[in-house]
Amino acid sequence: MKFKRFPMNKEVQSHQQTQMVKRSALQDMLVEASRPGVLSFALGLPAPELFPTSEYARAIDHVLSTKTQALQYGPPFQPLKEQITKLMTLRGVECKPEQVFLTSGAQQGISLLAQLLLHSGRQVIVEELAYTGFQQVLESYEPEIISVPTNIETGMEVDVVQRLLEQGARPAFIYTVTDGHNPLAVSMSNVKRIHLMEVAKRYCVPIIEDDPYGFIYYHDKLNPPLRAIDDQWVFYVGSFSKILAPALRVGWIIAPEAYITHLPNIKEASDINTSTLNQYAISHYLDSGHLTTHLQTLRDEYRIRRDAMLSALDRHFPRASRWHKPTSGIFIWVELPKGIDTVEALKISLETERIAFIPGQAFCVNNDCQASHCMRLNFSNSSVAGIEDGIPRLARVLTR
Amino acid sequence: MKFKRFPMNKEVQSHQQTQMVKRSALQDMLVEASRPGVLSFALGLPAPELFPTSEYARAIDHVLSTKTQALQYGPPFQPLKEQITKLMTLRGVECKPEQVFLTSGAQQGISLLAQLLLHSGRQVIVEELAYTGFQQVLESYEPEIISVPTNIETGMEVDVVQRLLEQGARPAFIYTVTDGHNPLAVSMSNVKRIHLMEVAKRYCVPIIEDDPYGFIYYHDKLNPPLRAIDDQWVFYVGSFSKILAPALRVGWIIAPEAYITHLPNIKEASDINTSTLNQYAISHYLDSGHLTTHLQTLRDEYRIRRDAMLSALDRHFPRASRWHKPTSGIFIWVELPKGIDTVEALKISLETERIAFIPGQAFCVNNDCQASHCMRLNFSNSSVAGIEDGIPRLARVLTR
Repeated sequence: MKFKRFPMNKEVQSHQQTQMVKRSALQDMLVEASRPGVLSFALGLPAPELFPTSEYARAIDHVLSTKTQALQYGPPFQPLKEQITKLMTLRGVECKPEQVFLTSGAQQGISLLAQLLLHSGRQVIVEELAYTGFQQVLESYEPEIISVPTNIETGMEVDVVQRLLEQGARPAFIYTVTDGHNPLAVSMSNVKRIHLMEVAKRYCVPIIEDDPYGFIYYHDKLNPPLRAIDDQWVFYVGSFSKILAPALRVGWIIAPEAYITHLPNIKEASDINTSTLNQYAISHYLDSGHLTTHLQTLRDEYRIRRDAMLSALDRHFPRASRWHKPTSGIFIWVELPKGIDTVEALKISLETERIAFIPGQAFCVNNDCQASHCMRLNFSNSSVAGIEDGIPRLARVLTR
Repeated sequence: MKFKRFPMNKEVQSHQQTQMVKRSALQDMLVEASRPGVLSFALGLPAPELFPTSEYARAIDHVLSTKTQALQYGPPFQPLKEQITKLMTLRGVECKPEQVFLTSGAQQGISLLAQLLLHSGRQVIVEELAYTGFQQVLESYEPEIISVPTNIETGMEVDVVQRLLEQGARPAFIYTVTDGHNPLAVSMSNVKRIHLMEVAKRYCVPIIEDDPYGFIYYHDKLNPPLRAIDDQWVFYVGSFSKILAPALRVGWIIAPEAYITHLPNIKEASDINTSTLNQYAISHYLDSGHLTTHLQTLRDEYRIRRDAMLSALDRHFPRASRWHKPTSGIFIWVELPKGIDTVEALKISLETERIAFIPGQAFCVNNDCQASHCMRLNFSNSSVAGIEDGIPRLARVLTR
């Protein structure tokens, strides 16, 4: 526990230790899950065969042969910021290049924002089940985590948020994934978005809106994110990881103007700057106009995989299981009959079928969350054949 | 001051504010310094015309056309860790791949180590004049900074470190740049290295040894770094930024084995992983065997630039100025006659000659450091012609 920044009281320590033990047992399994030969529905990986590899290779080649500063340290690339503002209009967001802050991926975006807004011991409002990478960010600050439930069809229970604030909660921020929720795959209803913004503004609480999946939708366009409703309290976090490729490590924050000048210092302290080469290459790729077609390819192909998984679940999973058809993102959240322990099931699944998924428990932000009978399945990183082979085998493990 | 993690007392706050105001005035000037047409001896940039651009372009091309996971998220690339252990033997360091932890550059290395070792309010031992990026890392922790002087010929005053520890100082760590010191350009004497390790071990104080310039030397090979003397207390930080290119954003920590398991969690929280593409491409570049020749090219060319700058200083700078011939690194530290204020001089220099440098004051870790008559000059990022043109013009500003 050496790396904690803050002297801990016994209670916190013991909770933290439980969390860490739980997580490291899980991490061991996830190492298992990444071994060759394992069919994995575990991680939130995009499909590598869909990466626009040759277009990106051409972009890098162009940049390296024309820009002498491409391999140098460099300031944020202004044309890329402008292109991001254009991209954001596809999400219904109007913003200015001055509000765009470039990061080394969305994870760094969240990490920098925690540094900006949070200090040890403060409160944070977050859903009971939340992205593990966000939980890792929180760990070193040891905030008081106030969790709110999520309705599987309409998203975060904003009424509960309102009640907490009325009762005196004063969080450093509220964290939410409004679309393609990780792990619940739900999109927040429009009514709730408007309500959440009303409440946040009334109580002056910033919101970190994590939106890695907002361009990956399967039916109509998604509702505009919170950032489209308000530009004073929302820190929107976007990324090229899911729409281009994760290895570029480029993402962005759209920050309220009052805060934008605070970000460069924190960013420089973290890693000086985002790779100049990748900024230039992404900008060149975007200039080529290929992204629109590429996004459509992703949506079409991921929709096919999602439907294959939904159909296989329908045919093979235990009767009393429940899931919802996600309208965006890359996950399906499955609630199995109570009594099935998915941590146990993962162990057996890896041993007998060499199939991996993430047990619901991994996403719990505190100990009273009930997800030990749940699992998160990823469909973007498996072929239809893999899904049709894997889901019945996984079902066998669950019904043994 | 919203982004501080810890409630501040008035005294700390006012010191911090002074520092921030000082730094932001300076930052404004550095923005000026990066404008086109300005001849800059300011930043610590490598020479872009020496980047092995076409070899690196070939490496990327090879990787993108052969490795399907090159643009995906991915774990640390084992062959690269092995190559780094080989590279470290050139510095006289024996280490194992398991001790190598990959980072997104040396700055991230320092930032992760601060997160590992430091928490708010603890002590840190650092030289009076220190790398500004390290100071930026410290800011959010608000540690008690205990500064020790540096001898311009032999490095950090280890006797003072010993005395502080004898008198009860218990720092979270000691930070030092043993070779090509930034900003002082000094290399620590071997006697002092051995002494510092003795003292650190006796008092169980970890050392962060920041070594971005250890492969850039101009005469005999440098003394081996602290990590060659001890593998239990030294966290060595290395980087490809100065020996290949900064835009790759790849560096490494060699960590004591007792700590290595703590690093992945902190790293994942910061930015998930270091770019897979760049890990693969650097590994392929290293496989080609070009690095040895490339390092020799850098040393030869930077030596010429260093000598050109030393000779120009000799001919043009005020009589009472002092500097030392650096045996490594990319800077010359100049002490001007007392009474010359280099912050003022920079303002005038930018206005009248459009020449930039960094005033000594920018590197001071506290207010009682005496460097207002000093400046740091970079020679790696200017041609000999630029140096021979710029130094006399800068001298004119100083002797007005």
